[in-house]
Amino acid sequence: MKNHAQLRQEVEKALQGLEVWQGEPQGLYQPAVYALGQGGKRIRPVLALMACQLFGKDCALALMPAIGLEVFHNFTLLHDDVMDKAAIRHGLPTVHMKWNANTAILSGDAMFAAAVSLTAKTPPASLPAVLDAFHRLALGVCEGQQYDMNFESQVQVSMAEYMEMIRLKTAVLIAGALEIGALVARAPETDVKHLYAYGNKIGLAFQLQDDWLDLYADEAKFGKKLGGDIRENKKTYLYIRAIEKLETEDRKQLEHWFSVATTPDNQEEKTVAVKTLFEKADAPRDCKEAVSKLFAEAGKHLSALSPLTDPAALKELQAFSAGLLGREF
Amino acid sequence: MKNHAQLRQEVEKALQGLEVWQGEPQGLYQPAVYALGQGGKRIRPVLALMACQLFGKDCALALMPAIGLEVFHNFTLLHDDVMDKAAIRHGLPTVHMKWNANTAILSGDAMFAAAVSLTAKTPPASLPAVLDAFHRLALGVCEGQQYDMNFESQVQVSMAEYMEMIRLKTAVLIAGALEIGALVARAPETDVKHLYAYGNKIGLAFQLQDDWLDLYADEAKFGKKLGGDIRENKKTYLYIRAIEKLETEDRKQLEHWFSVATTPDNQEEKTVAVKTLFEKADAPRDCKEAVSKLFAEAGKHLSALSPLTDPAALKELQAFSAGLLGREF
Repeated sequence: MKNHAQLRQEVEKALQGLEVWQGEPQGLYQPAVYALGQGGKRIRPVLALMACQLFGKDCALALMPAIGLEVFHNFTLLHDDVMDKAAIRHGLPTVHMKWNANTAILSGDAMFAAAVSLTAKTPPASLPAVLDAFHRLALGVCEGQQYDMNFESQVQVSMAEYMEMIRLKTAVLIAGALEIGALVARAPETDVKHLYAYGNKIGLAFQLQDDWLDLYADEAKFGKKLGGDIRENKKTYLYIRAIEKLETEDRKQLEHWFSVATTPDNQEEKTVAVKTLFEKADAPRDCKEAVSKLFAEAGKHLSALSPLTDPAALKELQAFSAGLLGREF
Repeated sequence: MKNHAQLRQEVEKALQGLEVWQGEPQGLYQPAVYALGQGGKRIRPVLALMACQLFGKDCALALMPAIGLEVFHNFTLLHDDVMDKAAIRHGLPTVHMKWNANTAILSGDAMFAAAVSLTAKTPPASLPAVLDAFHRLALGVCEGQQYDMNFESQVQVSMAEYMEMIRLKTAVLIAGALEIGALVARAPETDVKHLYAYGNKIGLAFQLQDDWLDLYADEAKFGKKLGGDIRENKKTYLYIRAIEKLETEDRKQLEHWFSVATTPDNQEEKTVAVKTLFEKADAPRDCKEAVSKLFAEAGKHLSALSPLTDPAALKELQAFSAGLLGREF
């Protein structure tokens, strides 16, 4: 069994060894190398490998589909950054800023193609099931991004709509990573389902945690200025929950702040006012509670796994997930 | 054995029966339905089905991967039209004009995901080989588009570079369609290779024919104004061949015309002048000859197929290819 640091090293080594990016034309492949070279926690492939070794299998079996998920994830970031006009990611210029939008579109497409090819390097016995999981998560991520874009112009977004959006945009990829790792290990169907459900809850918790961190993170560690979601009028958990709970006058004020563009002049006042309204509605506390609840629900799916699973590998998965959510376990 | 009209009907029926586009959010899937509903000759899936039935197999075996190729092809059109800022396709507004660029990017991504899923609906015995063929053609098409974009700003494009670009951008998908059909039919490896080589030559011929038709088509049947490639300063076979052959003065004049933007004022004069220079170099005649040569070379690969192939199905494939190139056979 390997611990998460070792698994992450395996992932880095495999990503760096990929031959596909050595091909021509370099204008197509350099942006992929750039995007994949920016680090990140490699959460998705590490989870896939963890799910595989849970069943006592050598995680090397799942290495190619696992890094396929990382390549796929980075492809979605290239395209999302074009659609969202995002200028910075991981503290560096996004691909469409460093090159241009066409490059981000086309290199992204090539990354998607490469991700398919890596996913296909699954042991043949589990290939149809793994491809099915891959295609479901790929469509899910597209659907989530579409809802996210729809929400920009949609005045009212309910909590149910929001949770469905983040399920698709974020959680299905986390859940799919665990599912694919378990499928490669030929785990029993019920275990595959429990791991998927676990990943789904962890993925939702992860996104809500992100919503909370936007205002309450330690700015030095966060690596970017707090309050970005407010400046961009992003309808996150905090906003939607506050709208649900605030009385008419406060709600109108909050809606007003989110209906005007953020400018250098109003930025300070807006952030303080919105944060105050969020706190008046206890939305940040509700958010933290929702994270805890999801985390607890997730745990039940791990407890329900069959006795086939390796206890040490299970503990490693629990510790890694808890670490992602910045929690003691 | 089914003739090409019957095969095309099968393809249309299967495309219309696809459930994936019925899902939510409709904003993601409507553009796919729109793009796929614009008809076209369905060349790629028909060729895949033809390759399958060549070996006496029921073409239904290859139907899902075949329409996967059509969905994939249409995905590339959505993205290409964004990158090329093309406003019209098949006489209708392109997706990014009818909706917007973000929609064309994201719906295109969803179509790619759907294409993977359709390709995966291949009988398991041929699945790894089919996925390998699919991923090679998908990366090839991206590489071809990258070269095509590079050529816009590249002053000198050699004929070898041009032929490699159209091989990647156009021919690998035609060749890959035949390859996939043959793989599904579990054809002998040498036959798969001959069909791939056949498709490659036909694909190249098809693109050169297109270059020629831009100036010499029957405008009524062509459906768009002749000379579009000249107005867009596109370095096609005609341009590159003329540059190769013209003497200094004429070459300089041609290079000059392709270095200036086309305006309503210079359009008429430019088209006539460039056409005259093309003809002075005999580039259109050379182009037609190149098409004939490729078509003849392609034919040799059909003749080399093993006796396993069904003669009637072979004749149908020959007739369909000849029809695509508007030739008597």
